[in-house]
Amino acid sequence: MANPTAILLISCPDQKGLVAKIANFIYSNGGNIIHADQHTDFAAGLFLTRLEWQLEGFNLPRDLIAPAFNAIAQPLKAKWELHFSDSVPRIAIWVSKQDHCLYDLIWRYRAGEFAAEIPLIISNHPNLKFVAEQFGIDYHHIPVTKDNKIEQEAKQLEVLREYNIDLVVLAKYMQVLSADFVNKFPQVINIHHSFLPAFVGANPYHKAFERGVKIIGATAHYITSDLDAGPIIEQDVVRVSHRDEVEDLIRKGKDLERVVLARAVRSHLRSRILVYGNRTVVFD
Amino acid sequence: MANPTAILLISCPDQKGLVAKIANFIYSNGGNIIHADQHTDFAAGLFLTRLEWQLEGFNLPRDLIAPAFNAIAQPLKAKWELHFSDSVPRIAIWVSKQDHCLYDLIWRYRAGEFAAEIPLIISNHPNLKFVAEQFGIDYHHIPVTKDNKIEQEAKQLEVLREYNIDLVVLAKYMQVLSADFVNKFPQVINIHHSFLPAFVGANPYHKAFERGVKIIGATAHYITSDLDAGPIIEQDVVRVSHRDEVEDLIRKGKDLERVVLARAVRSHLRSRILVYGNRTVVFD
Amino acid sequence: MANPTAILLISCPDQKGLVAKIANFIYSNGGNIIHADQHTDFAAGLFLTRLEWQLEGFNLPRDLIAPAFNAIAQPLKAKWELHFSDSVPRIAIWVSKQDHCLYDLIWRYRAGEFAAEIPLIISNHPNLKFVAEQFGIDYHHIPVTKDNKIEQEAKQLEVLREYNIDLVVLAKYMQVLSADFVNKFPQVINIHHSFLPAFVGANPYHKAFERGVKIIGATAHYITSDLDAGPIIEQDVVRVSHRDEVEDLIRKGKDLERVVLARAVRSHLRSRILVYGNRTVVFD
Amino acid sequence: MANPTAILLISCPDQKGLVAKIANFIYSNGGNIIHADQHTDFAAGLFLTRLEWQLEGFNLPRDLIAPAFNAIAQPLKAKWELHFSDSVPRIAIWVSKQDHCLYDLIWRYRAGEFAAEIPLIISNHPNLKFVAEQFGIDYHHIPVTKDNKIEQEAKQLEVLREYNIDLVVLAKYMQVLSADFVNKFPQVINIHHSFLPAFVGANPYHKAFERGVKIIGATAHYITSDLDAGPIIEQDVVRVSHRDEVEDLIRKGKDLERVVLARAVRSHLRSRILVYGNRTVVFD
Repeated sequence: MANPTAILLISCPDQKGLVAKIANFIYSNGGNIIHADQHTDFAAGLFLTRLEWQLEGFNLPRDLIAPAFNAIAQPLKAKWELHFSDSVPRIAIWVSKQDHCLYDLIWRYRAGEFAAEIPLIISNHPNLKFVAEQFGIDYHHIPVTKDNKIEQEAKQLEVLREYNIDLVVLAKYMQVLSADFVNKFPQVINIHHSFLPAFVGANPYHKAFERGVKIIGATAHYITSDLDAGPIIEQDVVRVSHRDEVEDLIRKGKDLERVVLARAVRSHLRSRILVYGNRTVVFD
Repeated sequence: MANPTAILLISCPDQKGLVAKIANFIYSNGGNIIHADQHTDFAAGLFLTRLEWQLEGFNLPRDLIAPAFNAIAQPLKAKWELHFSDSVPRIAIWVSKQDHCLYDLIWRYRAGEFAAEIPLIISNHPNLKFVAEQFGIDYHHIPVTKDNKIEQEAKQLEVLREYNIDLVVLAKYMQVLSADFVNKFPQVINIHHSFLPAFVGANPYHKAFERGVKIIGATAHYITSDLDAGPIIEQDVVRVSHRDEVEDLIRKGKDLERVVLARAVRSHLRSRILVYGNRTVVFD
Repeated sequence: MANPTAILLISCPDQKGLVAKIANFIYSNGGNIIHADQHTDFAAGLFLTRLEWQLEGFNLPRDLIAPAFNAIAQPLKAKWELHFSDSVPRIAIWVSKQDHCLYDLIWRYRAGEFAAEIPLIISNHPNLKFVAEQFGIDYHHIPVTKDNKIEQEAKQLEVLREYNIDLVVLAKYMQVLSADFVNKFPQVINIHHSFLPAFVGANPYHKAFERGVKIIGATAHYITSDLDAGPIIEQDVVRVSHRDEVEDLIRKGKDLERVVLARAVRSHLRSRILVYGNRTVVFD
Repeated sequence: MANPTAILLISCPDQKGLVAKIANFIYSNGGNIIHADQHTDFAAGLFLTRLEWQLEGFNLPRDLIAPAFNAIAQPLKAKWELHFSDSVPRIAIWVSKQDHCLYDLIWRYRAGEFAAEIPLIISNHPNLKFVAEQFGIDYHHIPVTKDNKIEQEAKQLEVLREYNIDLVVLAKYMQVLSADFVNKFPQVINIHHSFLPAFVGANPYHKAFERGVKIIGATAHYITSDLDAGPIIEQDVVRVSHRDEVEDLIRKGKDLERVVLARAVRSHLRSRILVYGNRTVVFD
C-alpha cells in the first residue's frame, strides 16, 4: 500500500445514520475507503469507528479535510482525530540500563515495521550510549533523583520539544513520570513487566515468583498520572514452571516485553488505537 | 442485544463508494447499524463486508429487504447473503463413536451459546444413542460401508430434509462424504484433528507422534469434495512434549477439537463467516 | 501402563546422595523406576522429587513400603507421601448453579481421564440435581446462608465422611469455606475465574472488563483459609478484545475454567503435585 | 549457579536399577546431583535420562569421568554424552540477507543467555557485514551457486575448522546443505519458517497464505540430509487473520523465528537435548 491514506478515528454518542453520514462525506469527495471498522459500546452508548481511505483521487486538499469534517462532527458531538499514513511521527525512546527493548525497537524501525523516525534516546544512565552510537541516534543522559526530578523533567520536555518528538516510548525506563509531566506530554507508551493489574509497581517478577504463578505477562499501556493504571493497549503471557527461578522469569519476560511493546507502538503509529475512558479500542 | 437485527455479508469487486452506498441503503430506510466491518483483499481486488443493523425502526418489511438490496447489489456485481439474528437454524450433529464434541455442542446449545436448534443426531454407529436420549434428541443410526455408501447418503439426505436441517456439524464423524453429497448439501462444518495442512487424512495424532512435533492442533473447516482441503474457519494448538505418548496427544487433542469446532459453529450461526475462493473471512 | 506403580513424593533439605539413597531403596527391593523427576529449590535449600516404579517384581509388600522408607526418610528430615497408581480416590464435586465444570468433570471421568470415583455432588442450590440424575450420581442439596454456615459445614463434613471422600473439587461453588472447614478437610481444589492474583474475590470478569484487560485467565488452586491465596496448581488465559462484553468474557472464561480445573484435578489424581510453602511443583 | 557442573545425557535399553547405578556412580565419587530428569519411551523400550551434578567436591578429575562412566555404560549398552557447564562452545552463525535472527542471537549472547562464543558469521551474501562489524565478529562471505556448491562447502568446512566451531546455527540461511556436508559437520541447528511438517521447502508463508490458515508457526530442528525433516527441537505459533497479507505473515513470523531458534540454541548449549531416532527429548 504505497498510496497515502487518510484515517479518521471517531467516537460519539450512538445514533442512526452515523456510518452513512461519515461514508458519504468520504465518497462525495471522491475517496475510496479501504478499511472501515466500527464498534458500539452499548453500555457506554458510544459509537466508535476507524475509517481509512485513499488520498489519491480525493477532492479535498489535506488541510481542508479537518475543517470540512468538523462541520459534520460537531452536531454529532463527536471526538475525532485525523491522521495521514505518510506522516512520519518522531519517537524518543527512553531507557535505563536494560537494552532488550531498545535493540528491538531499533531493529524493527530499520526493518520498516514502524513508519516513524527515531532521532532521540533519553536515559537516566549513561550505559546504553554505545547502542545509540551503533545506529547513529542522539543520546541524552539526564540523570534523575528524588531531589532534581522537577528540573530534570523540565529538561526532558525541552529536549522533546527541540527534537519535535510526537511519541515517547518508555522502553524499560525505570522512573515514574510526574503527573505534571504527563499533562504536558501525554503521548507516552510504557511497557510494564507484569500482567496488569497483577503485580503493580516495582519488582513484579519477584512478586510473581513469590506467589508461585504458572504464567507471567507483560502489559503495554498509555501513561497516566496513576501508576500502572493507564489504558491498556496490549498484553501477552508466557508459561513458567517450578523450574524457573526469578532470573528465568526475568529472561522469559524480556521476550514478552519486546513483542508487547512493539505491537503497541506499531498500533499507535498506524492510528489504530482509540482511547475512551480508561479503555482502548485497538482496531486490528 | 434482545432486539432482532439484519445482517448482510457482501463480497464484490472493489470500487469507490461501496461503504456509502450500502450504509445509505440502511440509513435511508431508518436502520441503525450496530456492527460494520470491512476488509479489502487487494490481491483479489475484492471488497468484503459485514453489516448488522437493528430491525426495530427499520422501514422495510423483512421480505422486501432482499429484493430492495438486490437492486443495489446487481450493478456492483456483488455476491451477498442476508440473515436475521432471530432466525433459528436447525443443526444435525453427526458422530461416530467419540462423544466429546457431541457433549460439548449440546452443553453449549443448552447454555445459550448457539442460537440454533439441535433436533437430530446421525451416526454410523449405535454407541451414542444414550447421549441423545439423555437430552431428548432424535438419533438416527445409519451404518455406512463401502458398498452401501451411495444409498445410505441418499437416506442421510432424506433425514436432513425431513428435519429441515440447515447445517450439518461433523463432530468426529469418521467417514468421508462423497462429492455428490457435498454438492447436494453444502453447509457442512467438520473438525479435523490436526493443524491442517499438516497430517491430512487418517490417524493424524499417530503421524504427529511419529514426526516428533512439539505442538499439535485442530482445524474446523467447511467440507468440500476435496478431503481436508476446504476453507479453514478456525484453528488452535496445544503444546506437547516427549512425555506425551499417542494417547496423551489424543486426550489433549480432544480439548482442542471441542473448542475449535464450537468456535467455528458459533461464528457460522452468527453469520460472521464469508467464504471466498478457498479462504474465509471471519468477522469477529 | 496397566501395571500398578508406587509413587513417592519427597521434599527434604538438599544434601549429597539423595538420589542414590532413594533409588537404591527401590532397586535393592527389585523395583523398576519408570519415572523420576527431581527439582532443587536453591533459594529454599530444598530437594524435591517424584519417583514412580512398577510394583510387579517389587519385593516389599505394599504395607511395608511406608515403614521401610520411613527408616530412610527420617535421618534426611524428609517430608514424603506414598501413593499407589491403582488406588481410586473418591471425589465430591461441589457446585452452585453453573454446570459447565460439572459436565466437563463428569465427561472426563467417564472418558477415563480421571482414575477416580465420583459418587457425590454437593450443592447449595437444587438446580443441578438433574445432571446428577442423568449420570446416576448422588446429589445433596445443602443450602448455606450466613446464619447457618457453621452447622451446614458440619453437615457437609458428615456427608464427605459418609461417602469416604478423598478430594473435594469446587467446580464453581460460589461460597467461601471457613478456615475451620479447611483445617478439617484440607484436600480441596478450587477454580477461580481470574488470572490470580489479579481480580481476587467476587465478580472478576466484571472487574477485568472495567480495567480493559486484553487477556483473561483462570486459576486452579488448593484452598487455604486465605481467600484465593492458596498454592496455585494451574493457570491459563485467553485473548479478549474491545468487541467482548462482560457476557463474552464470562463465556470465554467458562472454556478456560473447564480445562484449567480438569488439568489440576488430573495432576492431583496422578500424584504429580508437591506443595511446599505456598507453592506447587507440578511434575509433568 | 556459578559452580561448574557435569552433565550426563544417557539413552539405553530399559532395565531395572538404571537410576540407582548411575546415581551411585555420582554419589560414590562425592557428587551432588542438582538436576535429574528421566523419561521412558515404552514403545521403543528406551530409558533416557539427564543428570547434572556439581563438580566441586567430586573426587574424579574431569578427564577420568568419561572412562570411569564408560565402564558402567558399556554393559548397559548405553549411548551417552558428557558435558561440562563451564565449557564454552563456539558458534558460527550462518545468514543470507535477513538480519532479525542474527541480531537476536547476538543480543542474547551479549545478554548472557548463551554460554558460548560467537566468533564467526558466514554468509552467501555481503549484506550483513555491517552487523558483524558493529559487534566485532568476523564475517566470511562465501557465495554459493549450483555450480560451485561442492567447493564452497569445502571452504565453509575449512573456515569452521579454522575457528574451532562446535555448532552451526542457520539463522535464515537460505541454502540447502548437502548430505556430504551434514555428514562431516552434523551439529547444525536450522530455523524453518513454518509449522513443520506443514509447508516444507520454499516460500512457506506464501503457501500458508494461499491455504488460508488461521495460525502460522516456526520450527527449529537439527539438520539431516533430508530437507526440513530432521529432529524437531522447538516450535511455536502465532495467530493470523484475513487482515494479514503475506507481508504480515512474514513480519509476524520473524518474531516467532527469533524466539524459536533462540530457545533451541539455548537448550542445545545447556546440554538439554537428547536425540534418538528422529525425535528429541528436551529436558526442561
